[in-house]
Amino acid sequence: MKLATIKDGSRDGQLAVVARDLKTAHMGDAIAPTMQAALDDWAFISPQLDALYLQLNAGQARRAFDFDPSACMAPLPRACGWAVGAAWPHHLELDYRARGVEAPAWLLDEPLMAQGASGDLLGPCDDIVLAFEEWGIDFGAGLAAIVDDVPAAATPDEAHGRIRLLILANDVSLRNLMGDELGKGGGPLQSKPATGFSPVAVTPDELGDAWRGGKLHLRLRSSLNGNLVGQPDAGADMAFNFPQLIAHLCKTRRLRAGSIVGAGPVSNKERSGRGAVAPGYSCIAQARSVETIADGAASTPFMRFGDTVRIEILEEKGKSVFGAIEQKLVKA
Amino acid sequence: MKLATIKDGSRDGQLAVVARDLKTAHMGDAIAPTMQAALDDWAFISPQLDALYLQLNAGQARRAFDFDPSACMAPLPRACGWAVGAAWPHHLELDYRARGVEAPAWLLDEPLMAQGASGDLLGPCDDIVLAFEEWGIDFGAGLAAIVDDVPAAATPDEAHGRIRLLILANDVSLRNLMGDELGKGGGPLQSKPATGFSPVAVTPDELGDAWRGGKLHLRLRSSLNGNLVGQPDAGADMAFNFPQLIAHLCKTRRLRAGSIVGAGPVSNKERSGRGAVAPGYSCIAQARSVETIADGAASTPFMRFGDTVRIEILEEKGKSVFGAIEQKLVKA
Repeated sequence: MKLATIKDGSRDGQLAVVARDLKTAHMGDAIAPTMQAALDDWAFISPQLDALYLQLNAGQARRAFDFDPSACMAPLPRACGWAVGAAWPHHLELDYRARGVEAPAWLLDEPLMAQGASGDLLGPCDDIVLAFEEWGIDFGAGLAAIVDDVPAAATPDEAHGRIRLLILANDVSLRNLMGDELGKGGGPLQSKPATGFSPVAVTPDELGDAWRGGKLHLRLRSSLNGNLVGQPDAGADMAFNFPQLIAHLCKTRRLRAGSIVGAGPVSNKERSGRGAVAPGYSCIAQARSVETIADGAASTPFMRFGDTVRIEILEEKGKSVFGAIEQKLVKA
Repeated sequence: MKLATIKDGSRDGQLAVVARDLKTAHMGDAIAPTMQAALDDWAFISPQLDALYLQLNAGQARRAFDFDPSACMAPLPRACGWAVGAAWPHHLELDYRARGVEAPAWLLDEPLMAQGASGDLLGPCDDIVLAFEEWGIDFGAGLAAIVDDVPAAATPDEAHGRIRLLILANDVSLRNLMGDELGKGGGPLQSKPATGFSPVAVTPDELGDAWRGGKLHLRLRSSLNGNLVGQPDAGADMAFNFPQLIAHLCKTRRLRAGSIVGAGPVSNKERSGRGAVAPGYSCIAQARSVETIADGAASTPFMRFGDTVRIEILEEKGKSVFGAIEQKLVKA
């Protein structure tokens, strides 16, 4: 099943069911007003949404309309939780190497995870509005899971069964503000402006064999101003899968339905041999780390006002799974 | 005006107006279903709640009932934002000294602030349920402001005008998990379990002259198992007032109505002379820092299962302003 939140002038938007091919949609208002309301009572609500989804895919829904990603808010425009884990340590290893710092011993033992701001999450086509290019504005292509209630100290296996929806995230960072903040101990705060999300949230069953082992085995494509810059396989090199990330987060407290647990940026080690695909990067910081290691200095600039980042996952047949995040950077 | 959220089995509870003396209350359901709903449309809703508050205080509300703090949820049981700043640097200075580390130069220039988990906030009398005493379970007595929408890059003056409600917070920390987390750079995560809040949220106008300069000039009383352990003046030694904390948080992104911005633990320098009051402490970690500096070792233990912490502010006439947080620590 695929779900979206449609802009209606309210803070939480309206729940809609979206067809598998993302061509049509149908308001879910007769079933649940918002995506949060659906998550609050998932066992009761989701079968009704699923029935509507089947009708929609069969072309038999009564009030279907053309689906427009730009009419979407974030699936949960204000969520009750948003935390992100660095699940692909290759990205962090490059960062440490570029800075000439030895990678810490815990890097592969447990995820580096930070609490994020969940009160103002952006729709897939909403502008990224920021004041200064000098902040070092970077996109960050990742994935996220929206969970149901998760008890404290849940095991990864228990957490696995509480994943209700998967989404794409553009976890924007202000790289030139980040170093100072991380050194202070409080974690990223000003260096993390509002995050953007894909138009559509997808239930794991919809992903078939691509969702296995708590990982999504598909390539995450990132483009800057129309140029493909990254296409790493999200299923490869992921040291901590989603159940492990959720279990890490809920070690000392429970999570409530509608909490979003992110993983990013997706990052692959270069592979050689026949059929090897250049993974590229899911955030500019990684390109700059690679350049610094190779050349002693970074050459890829951070984002500039007017730049557009596009983040998407295509299935084998080239069809978009979640719809595309396509955000333009605009000066405040 | 004083507001509370009453337990009704739902995730967000029901909005109630509470009399100034905390003796009676009246459901707000005819005006707004939840405190979040009131904050979503504050300019329209709050005058209606205020009218009910006047009736209630005059003994003229039609369906008044006895107010019971134990029937309260957190004012916002799941908020869209929760961040806490260390606004009383004296607490941090003691921590650095006890660890033999030089206090960093930025300590008085900008607040150390961390994003918290807002999805599962506890009511004033809800148990603190945790698995292991070995985590170093500490209470943390502080204050918090609930804001309306705040634009990005708001100045402290602008932020001041967006404060809608003030509350007390018990920002529990797991001290023995915290050091590792802060060193990793992601900020506190597992070391911050669910936070508890006062039964009542109070509008700034209600506080009269005690609320001035963006600070609350009243003593925050903390007791452990009935013994008073702290009574620092929240208006003294506060290096960053609430408008400054909010402005710090919204430098690169807007805040949405219902975001909670905390300050704590409250901490005073010792004062000498006639009428000086021993401030005591608002978290056990501070007592342990003082002991470590004086004696080379900490002697005050962290909380044990069965312990109860009580946090309250009394007005000059001894009346409770926000009602008391009174939470028992219980083994999971």
